[in-house]
Amino acid sequence: MSHPQLDEHGRLQHLLSLDGLPREVLLQILDMAEPFLEVTEREVKKVPLLRGKSVFNLFFENSTRTRTTFEIAAKRLSADVINLNVSTSSTTKGESLLDTIDNLCAMNADMFVVRHASSGAPFLIARHLRERGLEHVHVVNAGDGRYAHPTQGLLDMYTIRHYKKDFSRLTVAIVGDVLHSRVARSEIAALTTLGVGELRVIGPKTLLPVGLEQFGARVFHDLRQGLRDVDVVMMLRLQNERMKGALLPSKEEYHQRFGLTPEKLALAKPDAIVMHPGPLNRGIEIDSSVADGPRSVILPQVTFGIAVRMAVMSLLAGQGAQA
Amino acid sequence: MSHPQLDEHGRLQHLLSLDGLPREVLLQILDMAEPFLEVTEREVKKVPLLRGKSVFNLFFENSTRTRTTFEIAAKRLSADVINLNVSTSSTTKGESLLDTIDNLCAMNADMFVVRHASSGAPFLIARHLRERGLEHVHVVNAGDGRYAHPTQGLLDMYTIRHYKKDFSRLTVAIVGDVLHSRVARSEIAALTTLGVGELRVIGPKTLLPVGLEQFGARVFHDLRQGLRDVDVVMMLRLQNERMKGALLPSKEEYHQRFGLTPEKLALAKPDAIVMHPGPLNRGIEIDSSVADGPRSVILPQVTFGIAVRMAVMSLLAGQGAQA
Amino acid sequence: MSHPQLDEHGRLQHLLSLDGLPREVLLQILDMAEPFLEVTEREVKKVPLLRGKSVFNLFFENSTRTRTTFEIAAKRLSADVINLNVSTSSTTKGESLLDTIDNLCAMNADMFVVRHASSGAPFLIARHLRERGLEHVHVVNAGDGRYAHPTQGLLDMYTIRHYKKDFSRLTVAIVGDVLHSRVARSEIAALTTLGVGELRVIGPKTLLPVGLEQFGARVFHDLRQGLRDVDVVMMLRLQNERMKGALLPSKEEYHQRFGLTPEKLALAKPDAIVMHPGPLNRGIEIDSSVADGPRSVILPQVTFGIAVRMAVMSLLAGQGAQA
Repeated sequence: MSHPQLDEHGRLQHLLSLDGLPREVLLQILDMAEPFLEVTEREVKKVPLLRGKSVFNLFFENSTRTRTTFEIAAKRLSADVINLNVSTSSTTKGESLLDTIDNLCAMNADMFVVRHASSGAPFLIARHLRERGLEHVHVVNAGDGRYAHPTQGLLDMYTIRHYKKDFSRLTVAIVGDVLHSRVARSEIAALTTLGVGELRVIGPKTLLPVGLEQFGARVFHDLRQGLRDVDVVMMLRLQNERMKGALLPSKEEYHQRFGLTPEKLALAKPDAIVMHPGPLNRGIEIDSSVADGPRSVILPQVTFGIAVRMAVMSLLAGQGAQA
Repeated sequence: MSHPQLDEHGRLQHLLSLDGLPREVLLQILDMAEPFLEVTEREVKKVPLLRGKSVFNLFFENSTRTRTTFEIAAKRLSADVINLNVSTSSTTKGESLLDTIDNLCAMNADMFVVRHASSGAPFLIARHLRERGLEHVHVVNAGDGRYAHPTQGLLDMYTIRHYKKDFSRLTVAIVGDVLHSRVARSEIAALTTLGVGELRVIGPKTLLPVGLEQFGARVFHDLRQGLRDVDVVMMLRLQNERMKGALLPSKEEYHQRFGLTPEKLALAKPDAIVMHPGPLNRGIEIDSSVADGPRSVILPQVTFGIAVRMAVMSLLAGQGAQA
Repeated sequence: MSHPQLDEHGRLQHLLSLDGLPREVLLQILDMAEPFLEVTEREVKKVPLLRGKSVFNLFFENSTRTRTTFEIAAKRLSADVINLNVSTSSTTKGESLLDTIDNLCAMNADMFVVRHASSGAPFLIARHLRERGLEHVHVVNAGDGRYAHPTQGLLDMYTIRHYKKDFSRLTVAIVGDVLHSRVARSEIAALTTLGVGELRVIGPKTLLPVGLEQFGARVFHDLRQGLRDVDVVMMLRLQNERMKGALLPSKEEYHQRFGLTPEKLALAKPDAIVMHPGPLNRGIEIDSSVADGPRSVILPQVTFGIAVRMAVMSLLAGQGAQA
């Protein structure tokens, strides 16, 4: 059985998940992102690596924010970008997901950036492309259901490496609704692959999956205990639907127990960094004084995110990328 | 009275309908499409023919699929493309269609790609442009009401010529709801102009217009009889609203009588090709085993469609096009 | 206290309002617009002044028409343009306006074109950028609440200067719902700054603000009296919501008293020009025979509008603009 994300030479063909992605590929992406960071600071923020390539943003689930990051990354690589909010289009005419893909491939698509409410949808597309012999068409998962959000995971790794260098010496804590979070799944996979020193997962019992220990994670249900002496605090966004659900008592109680306040953050190492994938629920999972404070690297995460997406896209489809 | 689509030198000024388009112009477009097909297979799928031109996709009726084909074609010609879903914009402020056109012309528009639920809307725009002396602004009809869908008709002709060469030796059957189909009208006009050997139209009495014989068409109400020894089968999409209407007994009965199955297709010539404008209603007008089978050219139609639209756009507004 | 729109060297940093903008800056924009008018008439309507710059159209209030003018202007300057209809995106996830701005700045945005229903929103963004030390990011107000619509005011000044040259010799009348009009506020500010000979404001008492005399305006409640011997008639659009409101008796009576008819226009100077910001309510505030007549410069206004917006954008963020 072949690898879903790599070609027969071990090169990245699709970015679907950080689960199962070899350490070398992961590091290759992080290394490639560095020069792109420099590009985004130039007077002319543009390189011709994807000139004449057709990139389709296929958003079956609405997310202006994530779509914007990919649109900017693709445009700075000089690609032609076509945005399709598919929920409101051909699927309403009863066309299936794979018929849509076949049609766009017949238009000579080079890349699909896919966001979908169903876990596994990008895998389904990638498998279909392989069955059709369309190895030159690439899929980037921009978030599928509860499963994965690999570019978010990658930009988080870039951020940690940027500020803290060696993963093996770090204690990293992921805090919040890990159970429903595709971001958390991608972060855990990447941190494990990169050999993080100690991985902690912190959250209420109702919002943590079982079996976290098998990834080598230490589980905490008390934020204060969990934050003690950590180098990196990775907060998760509390989804709105969760706030009203049966799994949580109330927003106020959540904030009291698991919201990151300056007082709780003081338990971490003095030079600990605070991360969050955005958008923020200020005053719920994180206080404004922390989010906007000196330890926060939330906005640099966004900047690194553009560079990381440029790296992924040019690795997959850049001029001479797979030559 | 002047020709609505041609200028005083007989050159294409607007593409509104295949009805009344001279054979030479039709063939000119098909010939021009060939090199663009080669462009879409390049590493850098881009030519500068429409660089600095402003192409407006004016979609008064939503159709992401068709809009996408024009957007890709225009971007591969290096045009600046602006998408306007007009149903949700200025018309809600009470601005009329022609006021919108006048405004966009004042912004130095070069081309309007128009989709409209009302038959004749693109003609109305073209006439208005002529009255205002704006001969350098071009209109492409991307589907108007039940009247015409000329780029679909053109890509269908390109497809037939690609696989079957000489129209005069061919028997071509159009199958389905011809009465409500702008695609069928455009196909019949083009096939007649190009001198098809034999034209057959197949469908239930309630879904065929009267007077088809005047176009030289042979009418069949039995799919098996109609398909016998044909070279080309052009299926039509059964519109959803039709499935529930009074003109049809049921989806199941429609499929039984007019759905294209492998068994019915076996009555056509052994090398017959099967076409469909998409999106497919699998299991209704066409079986998946036929749509995805060896005789199907449905996906090549999509590929040819991009090249044909690039040809039309560059013929109308390309650098030095009308010099 | 520093100037909200100018940097410490007196150069334009943001375009927020024509109120308080120095006469030299206003004239600088009008002068810069002239060569761009020539660009829009070229075969290749494109200059590389904003190549590699990221321009965000942030429309918190829907306006396809205005958004289109900025999109065209930016694309003709070779910028990368990203359209965000923010009403339907991240704000639904509870993200605040300034968090959205911070995120887009972290993606290396160069310019925000902002439309917002709340007066002052673009000022709020500009102040926030200054507080964050992001002086290289620019804001253009594309209409905020009832407050300002400066690019409309500028294109109106460009139009008047184009047809009438010297402001000091002119009598200019603004007609209609001045009370609720951001366009009128911008026009009055600019005309005052540019030293118009005589400024008249004409409308029903219920639709005129108090204190107009302090701007040196003569107030009229009778259109016939007010139009006598004017050089320029600037009509305002009557908003739909106003037509049904308590401030007006009926559409018919409004037209009778304040609608611009050929007969009323005859009271103005024989070479008077008629302006309107669009979209038109034909038969309400203006008759079609006037809007489409020989004195109307409504469509040239639109053409000048693109050139003026190109001037503003390149003044703010063009290659070497602030060097």
